[in-house]
Amino acid sequence: MLGVQNILFWIVPATAIIALAFAWMFFKQMMKKSEGTPKMIAIAEHVRKGAMAYLKQQYKIVIIVFIVLTILFVLMAFVWNVQNTWVPFAFLTGGFFSGLAGFFGMKTATYASARTANAARDSLNKGLQVAFRSGAVMGLVVVGLALLDISAWYIVLNIFIDSGDKAHNMAIITTTMLTFGMGASTQALFARVGGGIFTKAADVGADLVGKIEAGIPEDDPRNPATIADNVGDNVGDVAGMGADLYESYAGSILATAALGAAAFMKPGETNMQVSAVFAPMIIGAVGTLLSIVGIFAVKTKENATQKTLLSALGRGTNLSSILIMILSFFILKALGIQNYVGVWMSIIVGLITGWAIGKETEYFTSAAYKPTRNIAKQTETGAATVIINGIGTGMLSTAFPVLTIVVGTILAYLASAGWDFANMSMGLYGIGIAAVGMLSTLGITLATDAYGPIADNAGGNAEMAGLGEEVRKRTDALDSLGNTTAATGKGFAIGSAALTALALLASYIEEIKIGLIRLGETTIHVEEKIIPTATATLSDFMTYYDVTLMNPKVLMGMFIGAMMAFVFCGLTMNAVGRAASAMVDEVRRQFREIKGILTGETEPDYARCVEISTKGAQREMLLPSLLAIITPIVVGLIFGVSGVMGLLTGVLSSGFVLAIFMANAGGSWDNAKKYIEAGAHGGKGSEAHKAAIVGDTVGDPFKDTSGPSLNILIKLMTMVAIVMAGLTAAGSLL
Amino acid sequence: MLGVQNILFWIVPATAIIALAFAWMFFKQMMKKSEGTPKMIAIAEHVRKGAMAYLKQQYKIVIIVFIVLTILFVLMAFVWNVQNTWVPFAFLTGGFFSGLAGFFGMKTATYASARTANAARDSLNKGLQVAFRSGAVMGLVVVGLALLDISAWYIVLNIFIDSGDKAHNMAIITTTMLTFGMGASTQALFARVGGGIFTKAADVGADLVGKIEAGIPEDDPRNPATIADNVGDNVGDVAGMGADLYESYAGSILATAALGAAAFMKPGETNMQVSAVFAPMIIGAVGTLLSIVGIFAVKTKENATQKTLLSALGRGTNLSSILIMILSFFILKALGIQNYVGVWMSIIVGLITGWAIGKETEYFTSAAYKPTRNIAKQTETGAATVIINGIGTGMLSTAFPVLTIVVGTILAYLASAGWDFANMSMGLYGIGIAAVGMLSTLGITLATDAYGPIADNAGGNAEMAGLGEEVRKRTDALDSLGNTTAATGKGFAIGSAALTALALLASYIEEIKIGLIRLGETTIHVEEKIIPTATATLSDFMTYYDVTLMNPKVLMGMFIGAMMAFVFCGLTMNAVGRAASAMVDEVRRQFREIKGILTGETEPDYARCVEISTKGAQREMLLPSLLAIITPIVVGLIFGVSGVMGLLTGVLSSGFVLAIFMANAGGSWDNAKKYIEAGAHGGKGSEAHKAAIVGDTVGDPFKDTSGPSLNILIKLMTMVAIVMAGLTAAGSLL
Repeated sequence: MLGVQNILFWIVPATAIIALAFAWMFFKQMMKKSEGTPKMIAIAEHVRKGAMAYLKQQYKIVIIVFIVLTILFVLMAFVWNVQNTWVPFAFLTGGFFSGLAGFFGMKTATYASARTANAARDSLNKGLQVAFRSGAVMGLVVVGLALLDISAWYIVLNIFIDSGDKAHNMAIITTTMLTFGMGASTQALFARVGGGIFTKAADVGADLVGKIEAGIPEDDPRNPATIADNVGDNVGDVAGMGADLYESYAGSILATAALGAAAFMKPGETNMQVSAVFAPMIIGAVGTLLSIVGIFAVKTKENATQKTLLSALGRGTNLSSILIMILSFFILKALGIQNYVGVWMSIIVGLITGWAIGKETEYFTSAAYKPTRNIAKQTETGAATVIINGIGTGMLSTAFPVLTIVVGTILAYLASAGWDFANMSMGLYGIGIAAVGMLSTLGITLATDAYGPIADNAGGNAEMAGLGEEVRKRTDALDSLGNTTAATGKGFAIGSAALTALALLASYIEEIKIGLIRLGETTIHVEEKIIPTATATLSDFMTYYDVTLMNPKVLMGMFIGAMMAFVFCGLTMNAVGRAASAMVDEVRRQFREIKGILTGETEPDYARCVEISTKGAQREMLLPSLLAIITPIVVGLIFGVSGVMGLLTGVLSSGFVLAIFMANAGGSWDNAKKYIEAGAHGGKGSEAHKAAIVGDTVGDPFKDTSGPSLNILIKLMTMVAIVMAGLTAAGSLL
Repeated sequence: MLGVQNILFWIVPATAIIALAFAWMFFKQMMKKSEGTPKMIAIAEHVRKGAMAYLKQQYKIVIIVFIVLTILFVLMAFVWNVQNTWVPFAFLTGGFFSGLAGFFGMKTATYASARTANAARDSLNKGLQVAFRSGAVMGLVVVGLALLDISAWYIVLNIFIDSGDKAHNMAIITTTMLTFGMGASTQALFARVGGGIFTKAADVGADLVGKIEAGIPEDDPRNPATIADNVGDNVGDVAGMGADLYESYAGSILATAALGAAAFMKPGETNMQVSAVFAPMIIGAVGTLLSIVGIFAVKTKENATQKTLLSALGRGTNLSSILIMILSFFILKALGIQNYVGVWMSIIVGLITGWAIGKETEYFTSAAYKPTRNIAKQTETGAATVIINGIGTGMLSTAFPVLTIVVGTILAYLASAGWDFANMSMGLYGIGIAAVGMLSTLGITLATDAYGPIADNAGGNAEMAGLGEEVRKRTDALDSLGNTTAATGKGFAIGSAALTALALLASYIEEIKIGLIRLGETTIHVEEKIIPTATATLSDFMTYYDVTLMNPKVLMGMFIGAMMAFVFCGLTMNAVGRAASAMVDEVRRQFREIKGILTGETEPDYARCVEISTKGAQREMLLPSLLAIITPIVVGLIFGVSGVMGLLTGVLSSGFVLAIFMANAGGSWDNAKKYIEAGAHGGKGSEAHKAAIVGDTVGDPFKDTSGPSLNILIKLMTMVAIVMAGLTAAGSLL
């Protein structure tokens, strides 16, 4: 039996290599295409340089944060003895690989945009091929690096960690690997927040002065902020999203592995434990292989329309999803996991949940449906009613994804638990593996997601290079296609974040347990019984620490958690506001001081605008990110384990709902504007259009800065709590 | 000892009578003043009629809901035997008195506005006297009716309820009285939601067409929606607030009484139990007497300026607060409550917490401070940045009130618990009594709060009657004074809501306990022990129902709770949007079809606009209110006790933060606009002003519809759970 497990395990590193090889191949293929006219090349060069310059600044700050945290972990591991010695290293690699995934993705995207525009000069289909294959580079790099990191660490830790007890070893290995999740989360938060601030400062600034004041179209080369805007798409939507989903993907696998290790700790279950730990990794790996199959299935005829393109993309993702549904059954069976039919159903539930949330997102944000049309209609009574209706609809829209997650979570729990609520360890494993299932085909879903900003940038390039109406129309078609697939992608991102965070709560208690043992507290008093710490169940710890809803420490933790979600969004919203204001001032200054910009005689100073966004993002990203790291530590020191559990569930429940609200409100404002630009309610240039632009502008930081950052905030706070558990276990003020 | 208790108890009904007598006296005094010119009288008549017409419609719907719920309670009490037989009656009186408080308050306000305007023709001070004394009518009616209802029910139930065991009797009496809290909450929610939708539909509609499109000033008689707007102030800010605070006040006293009864259930503690139950009532009563003293202290010289007026108001409230701080010590001592110094400290903590939240609200919403000035500055880059910055700042501002409540709650808990976290029953009693302390001087704080809309309406009357610049300036001064005191009032409302809801969680478990006993389940299994249900502690029930943060039912309940807060706001926001759109259409129609409105030759059709707001509110108030009532029942039936506890803590934590966000964002947009109207950033009519109006318009439903309704939503859902506990105790699906 162990033979099958080991053979299956080697699929993981092998798949990592294969995925990276295909990514490399797609990248090379893309690079062979022509970048088009000298003007197109020059513009792409501008954008590429700006993006790299920004990333360099971001990494500088991130490196400082990583150094400080690593020193803290070294102290915890080597001096205070409240954490194991592998933690600092795992943390660093998680951050490094996450950054790398974003970097490669962005590099590819900045090379691909002009090439996509150039290919779109030939046909829609050719444009799609370049953009989509470039998106696939990102998708495969993200999952490839994640699988590589996971399998490498497993191999290393498996060799070196030896506590004498096999089951205990596995628990230490998997919880140590979670630390690398914290590295990835930290990197991801900076990338999302920094990238989000950069891109929206540029976007908002460009729109406010360019579109509204000067009355020039989007991406017009006369707008000084237009290059910064295009740079923003790359650093925010590509690099930010890459780091984000790297973290989601790795996080869900690691959390499930840790739950699997925790579920089978009794003597004689060692074999089952190995299976439970391997299962999420292997499903991720096989899903990646199927993603590659799916990517090749995305093909259309030369005379493709937008509709056939969409169905081509759909064919690819559906193929991968259906195949993983079937294959995961056999994987689980081969691994011989207890109640493998139930666990398999949890995976199916995860996939369906992600898909359903995507559809719900689409319903609430696409102009093809009533909610967004209603928002568009409000433009007739001005900007205020557009905002009121957008906020109202966004808030309302949270009902469906939340209920979907509730049903999905309960089903995933019960299926794996054999329909017995008391079987908590298997139930939680079911929640974790549902998230893994949801993200198993990330290789291709991310490809369809990442290709959106590439198409967007291609449109920018086409506009600035003056390629003419027809090309722009094609890139717009590609872009709007991207919006639809992005809705599905967001569903997966947000749904998996909720499930993973739920699963991680159990890992937190696992780490507390390990922390207690390390501190020499080998028994705990539960009610009147004395229980060995090592064999205490989750329920025992709940009683021991009184993690019940009548404990004021739990309730106050929840208040602080809910507040953190709002404060974090407030900080990032204001950051965008401030950076955008600086951008507006600069664009106005250039129009005023540099003669001939508006007539097209002089080129505006693009670089200065890129610099302003970079500086703004750099200055503003630190506070919200540090808050996310510090809060769980402080709450732990003051309120102890029960307070931290309250904090984590508070930020999870509020943050999840807030994230959906912001993403959906932002998305529907965006599409309401596009709907009007397509001719409804007076079309471009009308008063209604102006009102719609206000909505879209407000929605920008909602959907691209604050909203998506919340997913990471939730998980980062959980990860910090997990890594710091040794400290919290040592004692607290109250 | 029992003698002292009984003597002190009779203060409660006596105070109720005294408060109502003073209210009657103030009302009579106000009615003696002249209503001014025939035009002023006519306008006041218009507003009064409109307000009464609306209230009639609202009560019609509320009566239907009450009939349905009463039938349900009758079934539960008399047929299914899962609730006691007093519940339907208590429920009805709670709703009736709450409605009455709103009705009297509004009646007074509609008589007072023209009289205030007329008095302001003489001097600022005379205007203040009329407006403030009329506000005092509302304040005293609210607390008087609440104390009357509470003491009457206590007397009645004390005679009739006899379970054979004295301590158990008291538990049944106090938990039955909570049902009357549910009646009050139900009435309050309809009043707040309906009134909020009415007033903001009219306000937004009037502003959008009148101010922005037609360019006529606020309250201009040529605007067809202007009467509706003034009616709205009365039905929303007066009647809605009256019902709201009646519910808060009664709710905090009832919750604390129930906690007091639960804290001393052991044989031999009966005497202490009576004291603990009486304490919140007596403190409320004495606070009311001190409020009357404070009301008389509000006097100024004839040549008063705005500043001296504010200090006059401050003198009144401070006097009452300081006196209650001192007297409550002696009350608690006389009652001989266990650890009375600690309990007294909890009261002080409550008062300070409320005051601090008020100050924080003021800082974040007053144009005297940086946050609102920053929002005002954003008007220079247009409406979008105003909205972004307002939302960002509103979200950020949640940090301080939340941390204040966290510190306050922990201190109030620990002080009463003798600094021992394990002493849960006394700790929770401390949280409850802190809320009682916070609201003890409601008589006067509500007077300073309710006088705001009266002054606002007086301004409207003055404008429409063409009384000239000087009078309008004085009413504006009174109005802006009201804004400052309203900030403090909101702090008390929101702070007490959070504390009361926390305290009510324990009452929920108490009711579950009573429900189990009624069902014949006299013992519960906790771990391996069998415990008599009657003597089981809160902790035992937490273990029995597994109300821990690892139970997926709890976590899913939290998700649904957090979602409910957002969905409820979404529904009310959209309701305002829709009703405002209808109003805009109507005003535009009148301008178009009725010739001579804008030249002032023809009077617009005011009544039609009132009708539209009424219809809009009537149609839209039902769904959100029913959702609040149905959700706890459904969650209870599906997920059981643990799910309901999750739901309640989820809606409490998210709703509390969301409410602060919405109130503060709305308040600062309002004041940013006023700041610009006072001349900053270009002043009235500038582009900046237009952007500020967009912010203010968006803020209207934030601060006057959705935000304040959330307080009630949180408590209503908790009350529903409590009243339905018998049903939930009987079993659930999962």
